[in-house]
Amino acid sequence: MSPERYQRINQMLDKRQPDLTVVMENVHKNHNLSAVVRSADAIGVHEMHAIWLTKKARLSGGTALGSQNWVKIHNHKTIGEALEATQGQGMQVVVTHLSEHSVDFREVDYTKPTAILLGQEKYGVTDEALDIADHHVMIPMVGMVQSLNVSVAGAVMLYEAQRQRELAGLYDKTHVSAEERHRVLFEGGHP
Amino acid sequence: MSPERYQRINQMLDKRQPDLTVVMENVHKNHNLSAVVRSADAIGVHEMHAIWLTKKARLSGGTALGSQNWVKIHNHKTIGEALEATQGQGMQVVVTHLSEHSVDFREVDYTKPTAILLGQEKYGVTDEALDIADHHVMIPMVGMVQSLNVSVAGAVMLYEAQRQRELAGLYDKTHVSAEERHRVLFEGGHP
Ligand SMILES: C[S@@+](CC[C@H](N)C(=O)[O-])C[C@H]1O[C@@H](n2cnc3c(N)ncnc32)[C@H](O)[C@@H]1O
Ligand SMILES: C[S@@+](CC[C@H](N)C(=O)[O-])C[C@H]1O[C@@H](n2cnc3c(N)ncnc32)[C@H](O)[C@@H]1O
Repeated sequence: MSPERYQRINQMLDKRQPDLTVVMENVHKNHNLSAVVRSADAIGVHEMHAIWLTKKARLSGGTALGSQNWVKIHNHKTIGEALEATQGQGMQVVVTHLSEHSVDFREVDYTKPTAILLGQEKYGVTDEALDIADHHVMIPMVGMVQSLNVSVAGAVMLYEAQRQRELAGLYDKTHVSAEERHRVLFEGGHP
Repeated sequence: MSPERYQRINQMLDKRQPDLTVVMENVHKNHNLSAVVRSADAIGVHEMHAIWLTKKARLSGGTALGSQNWVKIHNHKTIGEALEATQGQGMQVVVTHLSEHSVDFREVDYTKPTAILLGQEKYGVTDEALDIADHHVMIPMVGMVQSLNVSVAGAVMLYEAQRQRELAGLYDKTHVSAEERHRVLFEGGHP
């Protein structure tokens, strides 16, 4: 590995936020999945979770621009299994859901360990996810359409988390363990 | 038109922000164009501008979910012509551009009349756009990928404008003229 690449990967790892993740529940369009991974990488998400609706869903290198090599994606068979994993890490579950009972997404504290849950393009999130969640949030909309594109909603959520974490100084400290740093540097982004 | 639909359109018009617009410079993938229009509608953009790279680009009803019926899109042959139109309305031009000379996107005041310029998927914005712009801004990224998807960048920009305008009370006043309200209600979303 060149010294420049070594330094670049180390700088990236310095900013990673292992206690912030995204759970994609049945999101199945490639360009949406890829765009979410790309946004997640951009704000320092280190690991993500997905429940695959079909086996056909696959991250395309084109739209994800290689970010799938840097954000580890854990596949789960059920939403219960996925949220067990994030709750096991002490994360609150924040479900994005279009409902009059949801609160404005900016009211939640994303400096806490957090799993952001995004739903399926057509049907949204499942009742099971809503039951397990600590918060139901909604991104305000004042136009004629009923919902945002899922990758757009994901990015708006993630950049709110980034804004809060930046203000709280969470990007000024290193959070990745020495072992994890070693693993990523060793694999060099080609796992 | 049913009373419910009449009321729904009036409520939408009450929130419209005619002094906030998006200029899409050569953005050519349908799903990106459509997602930007959908996000723009969601935060109250009333009119947009596009410079088409190819004639093939078309808004698909599927992804835009009908928002293209509610956000008027002006087509232009050149970026100069598009920015002449927005500057003629007294708007500052804010160009999104990945460069070390760009400032953080949250430093700009979007409560002022503003045109947000988004660039082409592969090549970004043109030098001509950069020359005309009042501000060059960048959405911070701390990961391995170099850029965000353009519709994601557009949404993050628009929701920052929404956040500032909400705080400033700009959604509490009506900004659309009586004539414009009449036109939209008359056309009923089927222009
Ligand atoms: C296209 S929407 C699904 C729409 C579905 N008809 C519903 O009512 O849930 C796909 C996903 O995008 C996210 N989403 C879209 N718009 C949102 C908004 N305004 N607030 C929060 N999440 C949103 C949610 O994760 C949602 O499950
Ligand atoms: C995929 S990017 C273009 C990348 C191109 N290689 C460049 O360097 O400009 C497409 C458009 O998305 C927007 N964009 C993407 N990431 C951005 C960021 N971090 N900050 C501001 N704008 C961004 C800009 O409008 C850009 O022109």
